[in-house]
Amino acid sequence: MISERLKKLGEKRSTIRELFEYGKLLKAQYGAENVYDFSIGNPSIPCPEEVTEVLTKLITEGDPVQLHSYTSSAGDPAVRGAIAAYLNEKYGIGAEADDIYMSCGAAASLTISLAAVTSPGDEVIIFTPYFPEYKVFTEQTGSKCVFVPLLPPAFQPDFAALSEAIGEKTSALIINSPHNPTGSILSAESLEKLGSLLREKEAAYGRPIYLISDEPYRELNYTDTPTPFVFPYYADTIVCYSYSKSLSLPGERIGYILVNPASKDRKALYAAIQGAGRSLGFVCAPSLLQKAVGQLQGRLSDISVYDRNRKLIFDGLTKIGYEAAQPDGAFYLFLKVPGGDAIRFSELAKKYRLLVVPSDDFGAPGYVRISYCVETEMIRRALPAFEALYREILSNG
Amino acid sequence: MISERLKKLGEKRSTIRELFEYGKLLKAQYGAENVYDFSIGNPSIPCPEEVTEVLTKLITEGDPVQLHSYTSSAGDPAVRGAIAAYLNEKYGIGAEADDIYMSCGAAASLTISLAAVTSPGDEVIIFTPYFPEYKVFTEQTGSKCVFVPLLPPAFQPDFAALSEAIGEKTSALIINSPHNPTGSILSAESLEKLGSLLREKEAAYGRPIYLISDEPYRELNYTDTPTPFVFPYYADTIVCYSYSKSLSLPGERIGYILVNPASKDRKALYAAIQGAGRSLGFVCAPSLLQKAVGQLQGRLSDISVYDRNRKLIFDGLTKIGYEAAQPDGAFYLFLKVPGGDAIRFSELAKKYRLLVVPSDDFGAPGYVRISYCVETEMIRRALPAFEALYREILSNG
Repeated sequence: MISERLKKLGEKRSTIRELFEYGKLLKAQYGAENVYDFSIGNPSIPCPEEVTEVLTKLITEGDPVQLHSYTSSAGDPAVRGAIAAYLNEKYGIGAEADDIYMSCGAAASLTISLAAVTSPGDEVIIFTPYFPEYKVFTEQTGSKCVFVPLLPPAFQPDFAALSEAIGEKTSALIINSPHNPTGSILSAESLEKLGSLLREKEAAYGRPIYLISDEPYRELNYTDTPTPFVFPYYADTIVCYSYSKSLSLPGERIGYILVNPASKDRKALYAAIQGAGRSLGFVCAPSLLQKAVGQLQGRLSDISVYDRNRKLIFDGLTKIGYEAAQPDGAFYLFLKVPGGDAIRFSELAKKYRLLVVPSDDFGAPGYVRISYCVETEMIRRALPAFEALYREILSNG
Repeated sequence: MISERLKKLGEKRSTIRELFEYGKLLKAQYGAENVYDFSIGNPSIPCPEEVTEVLTKLITEGDPVQLHSYTSSAGDPAVRGAIAAYLNEKYGIGAEADDIYMSCGAAASLTISLAAVTSPGDEVIIFTPYFPEYKVFTEQTGSKCVFVPLLPPAFQPDFAALSEAIGEKTSALIINSPHNPTGSILSAESLEKLGSLLREKEAAYGRPIYLISDEPYRELNYTDTPTPFVFPYYADTIVCYSYSKSLSLPGERIGYILVNPASKDRKALYAAIQGAGRSLGFVCAPSLLQKAVGQLQGRLSDISVYDRNRKLIFDGLTKIGYEAAQPDGAFYLFLKVPGGDAIRFSELAKKYRLLVVPSDDFGAPGYVRISYCVETEMIRRALPAFEALYREILSNG
């Protein structure tokens, strides 16, 4: 029988996707330059030129049988070695090639990691607001989502609520820093508290609680303080990384899972990750892209564009009168909705050909997410529309 | 908690992988030219030159943002349109772009399709001998495998056993033609019978039974009769295709799922496939490879090498005295083991530095699988070793 749950999931476009498709219609009607689409978190800047050079060289000079062959299921050992060496130099974590499992991007890393550390009936803690797919991935494993708020304006965890939420069925907790949709970054202080609390709960319940750190935005940090690397704060941690944003390669589906060498059951955990990848049908991450990223450690797209956009939209909107926390990372601004009704705001915004995602979809009401991974000029053109929208909202109460 | 099942799955290398790794050790010890490794089904011929040309052109001339961007979750509509047009011309099936879901290869196509049409507790019918991952993929959905034999020497289904095996919990049946590990091809007559039987059982149990046709070897057919396309024989069919073998791109993970336009719940089935892909973390198939295969419909690696190998090994081994059915497709020979103990035969073969996979791993005793996707010269060098092995087996009884 066709799975009713999966059918619904396939039929129901996400609000984000709906807005994006609606935007296409608007563009056809009014011209692309008159539509201000802030709905999708799709990198707007090209990959570094070195990516194109490395790919070209691999394809034109490599032996095609070797190049396109299956790699081992965990990924090309030389590539994993190169990544481990880079991470060890940068973060001093003592990782080996066999702590790294090459994956088809962050989503695959998450579904594999969740499968590896949960059993049906377990609970997974997710901070709100959250990337909606976390719920989909968690429920696919037969586990239940337990939501805990991040507190505005800095969107750090509500530790009292977190302590309450962790129970004997808690097998994992997902964090995402820099954060979609708020642009916040988990501070070293928050990670310190989180580590202590999780250690305490592990001891209390006598079972491991895995911290799954989803890090596609790791390098998209516009502050003077680097994004804290999570391993020193808590041993039982799994990092899910993707090159989608750092190298602007979202469609290529390439990333990795990194097991903390300090985790208690390091080898067993890694084996379960391999088993989960195999079981879910991943075979290996795309071989050409594996070999490419192996040669591109530490390279980064020109994220100064995002930083410029960030300042422009934050300054522009707050000047109009909107409220928002200054986003520190990723490429999202989380705007407080005047009056508090995000769905109504997003609907009304369409009149001004402004496409913004209501935060209800992220499990927290009262905000809209503005993806500023767009052309800078579009932001300039959009600001008057945001102003007109603001006036209408205020005048109508 | 770490999943015990997935940990075991990750720890336990398949026999095939064990043999392959053992082969590497032997090669280091005796020299690569003195080891005869027939263990792995990894294409030994390069992709067609056009693949390299198309990839180079896409990378050097395409807009990198467009090229590496997320496609829609079902895949680039233009690519899906090109595939539908090709299939319609070749097989007259009336497929639309929206019957095709681009996937990360055949394994992903299978896990997605199985998730879409099963619920935990259902039964999936698998013909023996079978590709061992079918069991892994089926069990991941919470369904149970029910095995039905293919009958030697032609390895066509045992229809009496099949009729017995189908019950009220049967939601799917997997076929694979040309077949791993036997090299057999399901005849039009067998497909005719299969279609009738499944229609009868659907009516009897009042529920759909999906035929999942795993077709990575579709074009690797060395007979004068093309591999019959399964849609005309049975409406509720899902084709899982991969370019791994036809274009020698196994590591790149690119293929598609094709829903039969004649299936009863075509749109619901397609939606469930989309939902399953999303839920398992596939996001989209690798974008560069999607765009490449869209331009490469109908291209095929030079499979004459496999055909030459096939004749050489079949003739050589039968001349020695071994028994095997002439393989018609794929790149496997299924050799009957003198004396019948395949595990002992495979162990003994190692003495002659011959690596062959015992059929016990494929759920059927008494044979070994010989992958002839190897250098032709290796086959010539291996034949005396096969002869010595044959003599030893016969002399020891």
